[in-house]
Amino acid sequence: MTEPTAAAAGRAGAPDENELAALDAHWRAANYLAAGQIYLMDNPLPAESLRPEHIKPRLLGHWGTDPGLNLVYTHLNRVIRNRDLDAICVWGPGHGGPAVLAGSWLDGSYTEVYPDVTRDARGMARLFRQFSFPGGVPSHVAPETPGSIHEGGELGYSLAHAYGAALDNPGLLVACVIGDGEAETGPLAGSWHADKFLDPVHDGAVLPILHLNGYKIANPTVLARIPESELDELLRGYGYEPVHVSGDEPLAVHRALARAMDDALDRIAAIHRRARAEGATDRPRWPVIVLRTPKGWTGPHEVGGLAVEGTWRSHQVPLTGVREDPERLRQLEEWLRSYRPEELFDDEGRPRPQVLACVPEGDRRLGSNPHANGGRLLRDLPLPGPEDFAVPVDAPGTTSHEPTAVLGGMLSRVMTDTAPVRNFRVVGPDETASNRLQSLYEATGKTWEAEELPGDEHLARDGRVMEVLSEHLCQGWLEGYLLTGRHGLFSSYEAFVHIVDSMVNQHIKWLRSSRALPWRMPIASLNYLLTSHVWRQDHNGFSHQDPGFVDHVLNKSPEVVRVYLPPDANTLLSVADHVLRSRDYVNVVVAGKQPTFDWLGLEQAREHCARGAGTWDWAGTESRGREPDVVLACAGDVPTQEVMAAADLLRRHLPDLAVRVVNVVDLTRLMPREEHPHGMPDAEFDGLFTRDRPVVFAYHGYPWLIHRLCYRRAGHGNLHVRGYKESGTTTTPFDMVVRNDLDRYRLVMDVIDRVPGLGVRAVSLRQAMADVRTRHHRWIREHGEDLPEVSGWSWSG
Amino acid sequence: MTEPTAAAAGRAGAPDENELAALDAHWRAANYLAAGQIYLMDNPLPAESLRPEHIKPRLLGHWGTDPGLNLVYTHLNRVIRNRDLDAICVWGPGHGGPAVLAGSWLDGSYTEVYPDVTRDARGMARLFRQFSFPGGVPSHVAPETPGSIHEGGELGYSLAHAYGAALDNPGLLVACVIGDGEAETGPLAGSWHADKFLDPVHDGAVLPILHLNGYKIANPTVLARIPESELDELLRGYGYEPVHVSGDEPLAVHRALARAMDDALDRIAAIHRRARAEGATDRPRWPVIVLRTPKGWTGPHEVGGLAVEGTWRSHQVPLTGVREDPERLRQLEEWLRSYRPEELFDDEGRPRPQVLACVPEGDRRLGSNPHANGGRLLRDLPLPGPEDFAVPVDAPGTTSHEPTAVLGGMLSRVMTDTAPVRNFRVVGPDETASNRLQSLYEATGKTWEAEELPGDEHLARDGRVMEVLSEHLCQGWLEGYLLTGRHGLFSSYEAFVHIVDSMVNQHIKWLRSSRALPWRMPIASLNYLLTSHVWRQDHNGFSHQDPGFVDHVLNKSPEVVRVYLPPDANTLLSVADHVLRSRDYVNVVVAGKQPTFDWLGLEQAREHCARGAGTWDWAGTESRGREPDVVLACAGDVPTQEVMAAADLLRRHLPDLAVRVVNVVDLTRLMPREEHPHGMPDAEFDGLFTRDRPVVFAYHGYPWLIHRLCYRRAGHGNLHVRGYKESGTTTTPFDMVVRNDLDRYRLVMDVIDRVPGLGVRAVSLRQAMADVRTRHHRWIREHGEDLPEVSGWSWSG
Repeated sequence: MTEPTAAAAGRAGAPDENELAALDAHWRAANYLAAGQIYLMDNPLPAESLRPEHIKPRLLGHWGTDPGLNLVYTHLNRVIRNRDLDAICVWGPGHGGPAVLAGSWLDGSYTEVYPDVTRDARGMARLFRQFSFPGGVPSHVAPETPGSIHEGGELGYSLAHAYGAALDNPGLLVACVIGDGEAETGPLAGSWHADKFLDPVHDGAVLPILHLNGYKIANPTVLARIPESELDELLRGYGYEPVHVSGDEPLAVHRALARAMDDALDRIAAIHRRARAEGATDRPRWPVIVLRTPKGWTGPHEVGGLAVEGTWRSHQVPLTGVREDPERLRQLEEWLRSYRPEELFDDEGRPRPQVLACVPEGDRRLGSNPHANGGRLLRDLPLPGPEDFAVPVDAPGTTSHEPTAVLGGMLSRVMTDTAPVRNFRVVGPDETASNRLQSLYEATGKTWEAEELPGDEHLARDGRVMEVLSEHLCQGWLEGYLLTGRHGLFSSYEAFVHIVDSMVNQHIKWLRSSRALPWRMPIASLNYLLTSHVWRQDHNGFSHQDPGFVDHVLNKSPEVVRVYLPPDANTLLSVADHVLRSRDYVNVVVAGKQPTFDWLGLEQAREHCARGAGTWDWAGTESRGREPDVVLACAGDVPTQEVMAAADLLRRHLPDLAVRVVNVVDLTRLMPREEHPHGMPDAEFDGLFTRDRPVVFAYHGYPWLIHRLCYRRAGHGNLHVRGYKESGTTTTPFDMVVRNDLDRYRLVMDVIDRVPGLGVRAVSLRQAMADVRTRHHRWIREHGEDLPEVSGWSWSG
Repeated sequence: MTEPTAAAAGRAGAPDENELAALDAHWRAANYLAAGQIYLMDNPLPAESLRPEHIKPRLLGHWGTDPGLNLVYTHLNRVIRNRDLDAICVWGPGHGGPAVLAGSWLDGSYTEVYPDVTRDARGMARLFRQFSFPGGVPSHVAPETPGSIHEGGELGYSLAHAYGAALDNPGLLVACVIGDGEAETGPLAGSWHADKFLDPVHDGAVLPILHLNGYKIANPTVLARIPESELDELLRGYGYEPVHVSGDEPLAVHRALARAMDDALDRIAAIHRRARAEGATDRPRWPVIVLRTPKGWTGPHEVGGLAVEGTWRSHQVPLTGVREDPERLRQLEEWLRSYRPEELFDDEGRPRPQVLACVPEGDRRLGSNPHANGGRLLRDLPLPGPEDFAVPVDAPGTTSHEPTAVLGGMLSRVMTDTAPVRNFRVVGPDETASNRLQSLYEATGKTWEAEELPGDEHLARDGRVMEVLSEHLCQGWLEGYLLTGRHGLFSSYEAFVHIVDSMVNQHIKWLRSSRALPWRMPIASLNYLLTSHVWRQDHNGFSHQDPGFVDHVLNKSPEVVRVYLPPDANTLLSVADHVLRSRDYVNVVVAGKQPTFDWLGLEQAREHCARGAGTWDWAGTESRGREPDVVLACAGDVPTQEVMAAADLLRRHLPDLAVRVVNVVDLTRLMPREEHPHGMPDAEFDGLFTRDRPVVFAYHGYPWLIHRLCYRRAGHGNLHVRGYKESGTTTTPFDMVVRNDLDRYRLVMDVIDRVPGLGVRAVSLRQAMADVRTRHHRWIREHGEDLPEVSGWSWSG
């Protein structure tokens, strides 16, 4: 589809009897291979009668969805070949791993990636045995599966992934099988509306295939149990044009599905032609195929007197106890032989020509399309470097900027510079401007294909900022976009990024597994900008305060996760420059959108960020060659400000106290070296934080996270952490830090409480600090705003 | 609606001019009060011309949605009064706090709960000043707001909450305002399908009111920018009958909305009549009202030359700089006076009779309905006690049971015993049977109003087990059900409960805030049963492994969160009995569904659970009065089994080693007493774990969680934790523990590595353990199953 009409090119017309027979042969072969994977560890063809020792000791996997997935694989092969399509498929019911593995083994992709698993009897035996076998391959469609960008285990994200893959790929068709189980999830239900964000000119096409096999694990599904007319209305209401295919007689279904696919692709081609050649600007109604076939189709019809085919009982392993029960063993053999494997594979186990007749070639194969191994297509982002956007800092703490607004300038340049190649997007739930990234709109618009009205601002059919009030859709789009070899950033309110906790789990697991596969090329990292953070919820209060996403991510594979808390504008630029260049990570960047003091010039910022954590000599009062009396550490913009103010107070009031100020940008540097690749060696940690001096650490989020990162360090017993402790409401930013004991006055008190022998001057300073806090408390409740001389401050260092 | 036809009872017909004028007066009053809350800290009526000092120093809050919410409040008042309805409303756009506060102040509920905020000028001044003011009330509809069960900040869950509230409340109408922003979220999009789970006989009615004001924070909304016919199809496809109301001329909108509400309620009454009196069993098409009115309606039309009313610019504070700019101050005064407050309030600031004409009385008021303060209606669950379900344990580790199956028996009894009152439900994403709770089906069916087919099992229109493949919907239903005074349990795959991380955040915050309000009566706890856990993902592997929900929950308010890891069937029964009796908590119970050794008889289990953590003397080898050489600690069923096996190995091979075995059921007992109400005093902790002996701790989840809970304890430096470290795939359960170094052999090696001076016998035992692990590794990769003599084992203690 690099040409507007590509979807319709090639051989047209309904399949003739020969082609139908070939399609059926491919499908039967795939079904045979799927069942074989679940059951057999030897005798794959089967060359001889099945004996117990041919059967795996543990029968694992999901059969129910496999025949449907195989059917789609077969028919996608047909249209790809007939129309020379550049196409991938997102397999929503990815727990049907055996199907997709079968398809890629048949199309030869599997053997190219795993040469041991040859396309013959020996390789077939390996394919079967390795499935869900210790040391083998996972039971789901996974990174290990060629041609996949989607692990289907959790359910809910297939359609969002498909749309993400199609964005800025005008020649790509992304088919997407959505199981009727998955269709019940909220994220999937919301993803249908992604059709309002797909530009028929610059983006490819998504072809959703809603597969109604009627059952989940143990229940009927909602969409299979409403009248077809109601389902039709639902899909039309989502903006689609449904094409229905139903049946349980294979040849009739082949015929109908072939016709439906041709019909859908013709419509897509017509949409592209209208938009690309004729300049139509109305929102198209994209086709969706509704495919109704029995769950566990062609599998055991009944087992032990209970219906299995066409019911939820075929969800996992339809026939159990096969090793132990000769009758079951016989039933399995009958089932396997029902596919007539001798017609499908030659004596050497090689698929016969008829089976492969529908299979496309080279990179056109679903198992080999480079879009499904996005690193193969990845180009470096043209990054301008932060110099042009850095804020000048003559002296620390004398000027202030909105860090995310400064970053917005740099992102805007990236957006401009990627306009010719369109490989960069920014996603967010209606917060791009609220998060001060509005400079982006100088470079591009907000994607919008729905109705426009006078007064609308920055909407554009070809925009590359994507805003929708669904974190799930934002995350799914971005994952799909990155996995197909592009770049992006997700900007979110800090608290609500928890909405995608489970999605980021899966993406991290995907990256972790991918890194172990030499054939999966590295992709761009998934970059989060978390802003509108816990300390600045003036309008929204308690419900919008949660800094725990960092904790969540840090539970995950250390090879993949990175967390940065830049304290000012230039450090944010430096971090952003770094994460946008990185590969195969999930980078979490937490930064404020409110005016923040500038602490470091760009060169200092770069050095500081490269180290990830370091002493700010100019901010402390220690003498060279002497251990400090106390370390004031900070991570995050608000904590840094409070620590700087505390250091200032200490300098002025206890000038003899040797204070070291340490700022941490890269949180994982605190971890032991054995636990995270960024972890500091103990000697470096001790050099920074000392082994025996009190450390008062002001942290952006939940304080115990710092303990969990540092508990193995020598000085851990002296570490005292302040942070957010779920004390919040709609109040002033300064009141927020006071409520959570993170304010400068409390930090000074903490220092005095922990450094012995400071004498009477410290005692009275401590009392003065406590008094200020009391005064603030009274004042704010009376006047509704901070006492300026208490909350305001400028650095005197 | 205690009578089937109640929704239609009372005065019928369209409102006459008088009634319309009264409705408009109520609405204008509410709008005035909403604007007043955002702006004024004095001069509320306003009695005199506005001066800068009357204006709040910080203008906070959301105006845009308020006029729409007020309109709904006004018209709900009308129908409640006319029809004597028992009704509550879930305000999806709950960030419009000023509106709902205005409504409850007008209906008198507010003053009853907060007597200082009288329904006169003095009280109005307080109402205004306290809003979003330090020490005042949050800017959102929150627990502090009378009549609410829903904080609207995060968006996505209103409709699920509404359905949850309606379940088993046959006389209740639950109106639900859904903003067009919220409607874009996945959870909301999926919640529409809850109509397939609402029984018109035993449940109340939900009346969704989709409010299209057209804009989010900075963008148009999807549903406002598709043709009305398409939206109509969408809602019909979801199973509803839409009633459209649009306009920006107040009286016309009043008239149309009154008619639409009457129409919708008549339809609901007809549905109830058909189902309840006539025995109809087809799934009804419930009405939904689609209400299109301008965002920020009646507010400033233009500010600084930019359109505000009817655009996203009215989302928060439409008119800023009011204190500083006399022209803006004038514009605000003009805006406030446009409501003609002198017609609405008398000289004392009391609402005039016309304003209150539509307001219902007593518990019928939206601000006072007891369903919105569910604790008022809460009845104790008839709990049978675990005795009838306990498994006999003659000797530890000799029999085994599926713990969740045993629990299923008890839950089934609860289900039976609550049949007359219908105040208990179990929700889960299609996993009740998979999680071995299938005994429940002896007591009730699975809720299902969609089509039934031959072969379906356990479906029932009036069932109280709710299964849908949406964790969001499960969570939302249960929250709504609990908040209206009932009981329940959410059974989930452990890994995928992360899907509702963000929802549970909000619920915990809700409970935390509620506990501080004397008028909010305690409600039943939200109980999670997390099963199909990380160690037993034989079919699904890595993507289904995540024990981190516990970590997530433990970041939250300690007053609210509880975490239990019962190691066997009887401890699970005891824990379940406890959590089902508890109030105002979020209880997370992690327990396996696979056969697990029985360790404790019921009485022992009860004592052990009451302590939350304790020594299992019979399992260790220490002598009384002597400190042990090492402590083997465990939390979770699989870790307990491995620790017991390790203790057994040590007893047999190093009989002189004094081993103490400690089992932890209640994880928060490990925390310091100051950090959690269940936290152990140091003396107790030291008594259990010693201050100086090595502790090898086998934990169910991420090992660093144990460090984060224990870092302040004296013996923390000697604590060595094993747990899940993201090493997983589809393999055997025993291979899973080996991969993560949690297996018995590794634990024995850990003990030997940490106890000094064990001599040559220990050295050779250590080598033997390492050899066994190597043998296992080789064997499993060859045979696909465990070496029985390595993984199997029975307790010889």
